[in-house]
Amino acid sequence: MNATWSARAKKKREEVLGLIPPKWRLPRPLPSPESQKDVTADYIRQFLSEREIDITETDAVGIVERTRTGKWTATEVVTAFCHRAALAHQLTNCLLEIFFDQAIMEAERLDANLATGKGPVGPLHGLPISFKDQFHVRGVETTMGYVGWIDTFEGVKGTRKERNVESELVREVCMLGAVPFCKSNLPHTVMSGVTWNHITGHTLNPFNRLLTCGGSSGGEAALIALRGSPLGVGTDIGGSIRYPSAFNEIYGLRPSYGRLPYLGAANSMPGQNIVPSVCGPMATSARALRLLVEATLSQEPWLHDPAVVEIPWRRELATSLPSDGTRLTFGLYKTTGEVTPLPPVQRALAFVADLIRKKGHDVIEWNPPSHLEATALALEAFKADGGVDIHYNLGLAGEPPQDRVEGNYGIRATTPKPGNEVFDLVLRHKRYQKQYMDYWNSTAKLTSSGRPVDAILSPVSPVPPHLFFATTDYGKLGYTPWVNVIDSPGVVFPVTRVDKNIDKVDETYQPLTELDGKIWEEYDPEVSHGGPVGLQLVGRRFQEEKVIALAEMFQEWLA
Amino acid sequence: MNATWSARAKKKREEVLGLIPPKWRLPRPLPSPESQKDVTADYIRQFLSEREIDITETDAVGIVERTRTGKWTATEVVTAFCHRAALAHQLTNCLLEIFFDQAIMEAERLDANLATGKGPVGPLHGLPISFKDQFHVRGVETTMGYVGWIDTFEGVKGTRKERNVESELVREVCMLGAVPFCKSNLPHTVMSGVTWNHITGHTLNPFNRLLTCGGSSGGEAALIALRGSPLGVGTDIGGSIRYPSAFNEIYGLRPSYGRLPYLGAANSMPGQNIVPSVCGPMATSARALRLLVEATLSQEPWLHDPAVVEIPWRRELATSLPSDGTRLTFGLYKTTGEVTPLPPVQRALAFVADLIRKKGHDVIEWNPPSHLEATALALEAFKADGGVDIHYNLGLAGEPPQDRVEGNYGIRATTPKPGNEVFDLVLRHKRYQKQYMDYWNSTAKLTSSGRPVDAILSPVSPVPPHLFFATTDYGKLGYTPWVNVIDSPGVVFPVTRVDKNIDKVDETYQPLTELDGKIWEEYDPEVSHGGPVGLQLVGRRFQEEKVIALAEMFQEWLA
Repeated sequence: MNATWSARAKKKREEVLGLIPPKWRLPRPLPSPESQKDVTADYIRQFLSEREIDITETDAVGIVERTRTGKWTATEVVTAFCHRAALAHQLTNCLLEIFFDQAIMEAERLDANLATGKGPVGPLHGLPISFKDQFHVRGVETTMGYVGWIDTFEGVKGTRKERNVESELVREVCMLGAVPFCKSNLPHTVMSGVTWNHITGHTLNPFNRLLTCGGSSGGEAALIALRGSPLGVGTDIGGSIRYPSAFNEIYGLRPSYGRLPYLGAANSMPGQNIVPSVCGPMATSARALRLLVEATLSQEPWLHDPAVVEIPWRRELATSLPSDGTRLTFGLYKTTGEVTPLPPVQRALAFVADLIRKKGHDVIEWNPPSHLEATALALEAFKADGGVDIHYNLGLAGEPPQDRVEGNYGIRATTPKPGNEVFDLVLRHKRYQKQYMDYWNSTAKLTSSGRPVDAILSPVSPVPPHLFFATTDYGKLGYTPWVNVIDSPGVVFPVTRVDKNIDKVDETYQPLTELDGKIWEEYDPEVSHGGPVGLQLVGRRFQEEKVIALAEMFQEWLA
Repeated sequence: MNATWSARAKKKREEVLGLIPPKWRLPRPLPSPESQKDVTADYIRQFLSEREIDITETDAVGIVERTRTGKWTATEVVTAFCHRAALAHQLTNCLLEIFFDQAIMEAERLDANLATGKGPVGPLHGLPISFKDQFHVRGVETTMGYVGWIDTFEGVKGTRKERNVESELVREVCMLGAVPFCKSNLPHTVMSGVTWNHITGHTLNPFNRLLTCGGSSGGEAALIALRGSPLGVGTDIGGSIRYPSAFNEIYGLRPSYGRLPYLGAANSMPGQNIVPSVCGPMATSARALRLLVEATLSQEPWLHDPAVVEIPWRRELATSLPSDGTRLTFGLYKTTGEVTPLPPVQRALAFVADLIRKKGHDVIEWNPPSHLEATALALEAFKADGGVDIHYNLGLAGEPPQDRVEGNYGIRATTPKPGNEVFDLVLRHKRYQKQYMDYWNSTAKLTSSGRPVDAILSPVSPVPPHLFFATTDYGKLGYTPWVNVIDSPGVVFPVTRVDKNIDKVDETYQPLTELDGKIWEEYDPEVSHGGPVGLQLVGRRFQEEKVIALAEMFQEWLA
């Protein structure tokens, strides 16, 4: 253990904790995860006033309805969320940056502005918003979990950019009236399904603190699950918004590449443009996802981020039901063929498929080109630089990679893929996308409407929330990267929680593969009990409006 | 000289010529380029009937007005263009594939269909259309100028795809009623501004056959200039639609990447996704460009080509004048700082700038981030595979690279750029795009409307049409790749022709650089006399509607 980097990490961790005002500190000793697994709902509520509970358990749309009209002051709302985020952090380690003072000052400015009678500054007036620690907020550091990035700008010292730049999306939501107040934890490198780094350590799953919150946008998911933030922004390159959203009973959107501005956010291998990372909202309601996307698009981000495509919010697409009165058809995706989803995930899928039918719509089997090929393709893209970027940044402080990162990238960089092979991979990617599109189009002949399948219903993770670094890398089981590879919008919505009395081990199960056998053998309903299970709905590229509308409908149905 | 490949090339060349019906062959001996430099207008008309001239000198929009209503039969129209294309090929070597019989049969089918009273099959009913020889048409070969691709599918034998596949755009325009009838010449590899390959040899500039037609979509440009086709499709990775359009007095559009479907067309380094090639229309009028883009988008190509973005044709954007009555502002781009445009190009620029002012609009100087940096960046992307793809395909027949290809790619492949450096290049590209966007936005404070500059007026080539393989590679002077690098739509429109009596050598000119001195020294008004000069209008990414509308306005102004 290197004294230098571990000391720097510890110092940073304590600085962050030190930014929690004494009045918001929990009584010591904190309960152990073993003694208090679930810290959601009533547990965390005990530390809050009724008024604070009322505010923090209102969704983002409900909040702006009140802050825009002055029914609630921005200051009270932001302060309540700061308080609850402080509690959430003490219970789950979900934050990496705290800037409550700065946020409350901004809220006061917004209130003063509203008091002049000029009206709200925008559709997000007074809305607290949290960001995964890849986004730069003026006045605040960004480490992305790297010890070597402390006191630097993305690893470089003396740039004058330190604490002094704003990512484009941050700038835009601030223009719209939102108030950033904290940044959330993530695995260093962002390339892991387990939210752990040397600075903060593990972010715990608030529903069962013996389990991981998933990742890489895990801090964001745990924070929002505890209602420490009504709306946050994560990133997703292979499932990093969806995996933790499913594990934390929240809504999360992975938009198509180029729909929302990513410009000026930190990232690993930021030039990797084959299966690129995207940013998207995570929230306590489906309509809050809509709020963020619609509001951001009103800023015409295509005039500020060259990667954003000029597609405004299309109100006419934002409806769940076809105007011609035909039934919707959902493609039901059940298994990769390598690993079958475990009992609680199967139950969630069957339950939602039944619900769809009960509501008068159709479900057909989804048998697309192999999702394992999509996963293989994505992993090859993620490693095309030979891990040069990741090992460079780990090397800045000499910190070792976390378990999952080492699993993918080893302990040192290897030979990068030569340019011609990078381009071969691009071609393989394009061919896969075309096959997938052709399959999707071909389902028109199977639906009652004559339209191709409206959306795909799929597991997010075939396993429920699990132990931190289990022997298997559960983040790599292939149920999420296909969405990145076809570049479709995917929305996660909460469905159920693991119940050890229902989701029992199926002793008769015949594994499909050796890996499947291992996954099913490792499953322990006692361990995963209480862990949330979410599913994803996947739509056509750039049709964020439609998948969000469908998720809103599912939220109503499931309420 | 390898007997095998040269014999195969010769055989192919003769087969193509053999597909011209005897009645359409020109009397032998053909006049030499020296004795008959200009073969446009009256020269080529002498071989056509009045009726054929009437048909072939009608633009694509005028044609479909008549073929859709049955005023002209598709058969007569297609046959007239086949005749004129046959003449054009004999005069300039502009074709690489001829399939007149197949086209005329298709035209007859369309006429029969219209006769049943079912109406036209689509907006392009009966419109002849030509394609650069990267596009696959069923029943026809695609060699892309490579000898090694003869009797193969993109260089591979026995795939059963030979003569049996259709590129997506070809499929779509056929669905819309268009009739492909020939494919046009190009440099092998497509990576050259001179249209020459071992099969066809040089395509000559129809206005002055001692000069090049430019490239790489040079066959298409020469064909359309001679009215052998009303509408063609070329491709542009660094200027390949615009450079030959400017040299041949036609209109050409380089759309944004993802606006039109490229899927299923052959290409060099098809996985190169940093500064990618795009396809776009070339035609005898600006409104014909609109016709092709609007019609294609009506097919919802985003449901068939995963790279196409879901942006339909937006009628409300397709107007040249602002609805608020404000004046337009054009950014006038004068020089890269390395090479100053030669006298005829300067005259064209000054003329159009004056015209803009006379029409009551504004012109301001355009001083963007260096276009030379954009050019350097594009060349680095084009060579990131070390020339592996190009040398592999040249090697299939053992043919040597043409002059300009050798200049860029040498005589054998070199070490590809490692994956991490490929991604570094992507980042450099993104940074450049952002700088450019910021500059463009900043011009809002300089315009009378308060909007950023509406479009940029720029040279296409700083030199007019020139000798085939002059000592300098005129295709690399940096006036076109910046448009690819910022991924903007660019429309070329014809302005003037070189006049040796006006565009005299300026003996007092002080060169900016050594290269500039060379360019100006090589300029000979006697040699370039009669060569067309076009300029380009560049708009915001994905705003094809707007730049086309502006080009329509310029066409009217210049008429």
